[in-house]
Amino acid sequence: MTPFSSRWVEPPASVAERSGGLAAGFRAAGVVAGIKPSGDPDLALLVSSEPDTVSAARFTRSGVLAAPVLLCRSRCRLDALRAVVVNSGNANAATGNRGLEDAARMQGAGAMAAGVHEERVAVASTGVIGVAMPMDGMMRGILAARGELDVDGDAAFWRAIATTDAFEKRLSLDVALPSGTVRVSAQAKGAGMIAPAFATMLCFVQTDAVLAPGTADLLLGVCVKRSFDRISVDGQLSTNDTALLMASGASGVVVEPESDDELVLGEALDYALRRLAVQMVRDGEGAARVGRVHVTGGEDATVERVARAVADSPLVKAALHGGDPNWGRVVQAVGAALPGASPLPLDVHIEGVRVCAAGVGVPHDAAALAAAVAGEEVEYTIGLPGDGAETEVFFSDLSHEYVRVNAEYTT
Amino acid sequence: MTPFSSRWVEPPASVAERSGGLAAGFRAAGVVAGIKPSGDPDLALLVSSEPDTVSAARFTRSGVLAAPVLLCRSRCRLDALRAVVVNSGNANAATGNRGLEDAARMQGAGAMAAGVHEERVAVASTGVIGVAMPMDGMMRGILAARGELDVDGDAAFWRAIATTDAFEKRLSLDVALPSGTVRVSAQAKGAGMIAPAFATMLCFVQTDAVLAPGTADLLLGVCVKRSFDRISVDGQLSTNDTALLMASGASGVVVEPESDDELVLGEALDYALRRLAVQMVRDGEGAARVGRVHVTGGEDATVERVARAVADSPLVKAALHGGDPNWGRVVQAVGAALPGASPLPLDVHIEGVRVCAAGVGVPHDAAALAAAVAGEEVEYTIGLPGDGAETEVFFSDLSHEYVRVNAEYTT
Repeated sequence: MTPFSSRWVEPPASVAERSGGLAAGFRAAGVVAGIKPSGDPDLALLVSSEPDTVSAARFTRSGVLAAPVLLCRSRCRLDALRAVVVNSGNANAATGNRGLEDAARMQGAGAMAAGVHEERVAVASTGVIGVAMPMDGMMRGILAARGELDVDGDAAFWRAIATTDAFEKRLSLDVALPSGTVRVSAQAKGAGMIAPAFATMLCFVQTDAVLAPGTADLLLGVCVKRSFDRISVDGQLSTNDTALLMASGASGVVVEPESDDELVLGEALDYALRRLAVQMVRDGEGAARVGRVHVTGGEDATVERVARAVADSPLVKAALHGGDPNWGRVVQAVGAALPGASPLPLDVHIEGVRVCAAGVGVPHDAAALAAAVAGEEVEYTIGLPGDGAETEVFFSDLSHEYVRVNAEYTT
Repeated sequence: MTPFSSRWVEPPASVAERSGGLAAGFRAAGVVAGIKPSGDPDLALLVSSEPDTVSAARFTRSGVLAAPVLLCRSRCRLDALRAVVVNSGNANAATGNRGLEDAARMQGAGAMAAGVHEERVAVASTGVIGVAMPMDGMMRGILAARGELDVDGDAAFWRAIATTDAFEKRLSLDVALPSGTVRVSAQAKGAGMIAPAFATMLCFVQTDAVLAPGTADLLLGVCVKRSFDRISVDGQLSTNDTALLMASGASGVVVEPESDDELVLGEALDYALRRLAVQMVRDGEGAARVGRVHVTGGEDATVERVARAVADSPLVKAALHGGDPNWGRVVQAVGAALPGASPLPLDVHIEGVRVCAAGVGVPHDAAALAAAVAGEEVEYTIGLPGDGAETEVFFSDLSHEYVRVNAEYTT
């Protein structure tokens, strides 16, 4: 697994890192189904053996929804999923009724492979939009994946859901709850088309804790808001974003609502999802540096708008890439987000160095600042008038590699 | 001057292109004032010799306004400007009271050089944000520019207002109005930080027609809305955007409100500003291709939001750069702009080829489409449900050169 360290995401004391392996009750596999021209793995299957497995889900807020998302929302028991079929290389989006039928076929084949009712099988896809799914390979792939299901199949599962990802986004944690130890495993893909309202990303999280459906939904909802909702690679929102949490209950450790167990498990899930989210930004289709913009002020809507404007600004991103402490571009992005706000007495710090106070540039040690922004993580702090509201967004830089990847990644 | 041709911007029959030269009554100059480290020209002066010169102005809608914009808005007779002092290399933004004083000094020196009252002198700046203006060079520069004022000074003027521009954006037209021939000359700079609500751009337009201030304001307002308001290089909004129209009246040709003369002059100004706007997009700090997105539908706000989302999408821009007919990214951008709109029966054409109908991809000649998007101009047509609303946005691609320019352009 990819080693991870960030000053912005620290593991809680309850968490012990493992080298891999799914939470108890789950098996997974990833195989080559022939969807990707490269011949890389592109079909993934995840199954829980526990009949009482509960789950929760979150999906993209795009106005154009891919067929698998439509299917999951209308034809799945999202609180009781037992299996997931995922393909990469084709998004099954803008594919009309044919796409819905193909997604339904994947669901049906997944149900057969997992031995569960089809409404307990979720489907997810990622890849090119607007191309019909190559269903022959898909069906053979699901069959092949069934034969390879394994409790240590998370690495293979991850490879088969990845697209332009430059490195693995996967983790396996033992979490010491007051009532006993549970495991949390998670696999995520996402490197571009990442943006507001979570990201072009798929994330599958498993735990062997015993959770009520309402607890699973609460935990996933809170953690997604603090992770995939707070990142931007390129300000783009995918048609396919999906995050699923499944709890098999195989550990026998019961997590009651509003208990200390829930609190500690929530901290571990929060760590897991924020870690995967920052990894997506770090990947960012060629990203070299990661920025974090932290905005305070008097109104929630305003701090959110400003944080997004800075995180999505190609000028700020290019300056981040170049290791250029060009704070004027930050000011420009703030101004653009708040038309009519002039005069705006904003404060800007970069890596703790105050560069702008009450809207006016202030003298600072330019050499020290230049050195500070040469690191892998750069923090921008923006103070708007007022108190009580704050937010953060993690963002990628804008690199030559991003252009290369996205000028060449083709239909 | 840079030759210009675009299927989107055709010259009206009344217009005859000239190789250069200002409208009668105007003289201009551009000199080296030592603001740019490169030693390139960076101080420009434009003066009308006609006491009854009238004018109109439009400025950025940013919430962070540069000192020259604040000064123009509060200390100028914007309907009766006779001179403009412009510097490049320093934006005089986020510079506080010191910046306002420096802008006032530029205005004062400009008034002295032009021999007019200071409230009839506009000031404009473009360049790095948050750095104090080097006033010594500035004042010497204004003096030097005064000595070089020339009726053919438009080329030198242009060079001194340019920053990262890769080519000249300047024109000189003879316009055959029913009541007589007038001249229109214009100089514009802008290549990046170009976006909603016009652009990081400066544009100075001169005519020797006799206009009432209200006519000048009406013509400039309409033409800016159809040109600089409809382009995006990178979705960014500058602190300094300024567009000025000055009419010396030196031709003696009177353009009455609601006359045929006004109509024909309006067409010529529309051509001039749209041409300069498309040139800015074409420049676009390394742009290789220009896109035009045309959106129709039932609501003004919706078509505007969709057009901006497509034009500003780094994924669409990168695909445009790569000559990749990846229409899925267009669909993605539309969906992101309209959360909750699913199912969205949108139609998408690229270069006249229908690729998506009622939200579903349709078979098309992929080779023909690939050839069609290999040209310098690519047109995207998006049909949303409903009738009566439409808009367009011209946009740059996202190139390696954009990243290079903006990772290296430094404080």
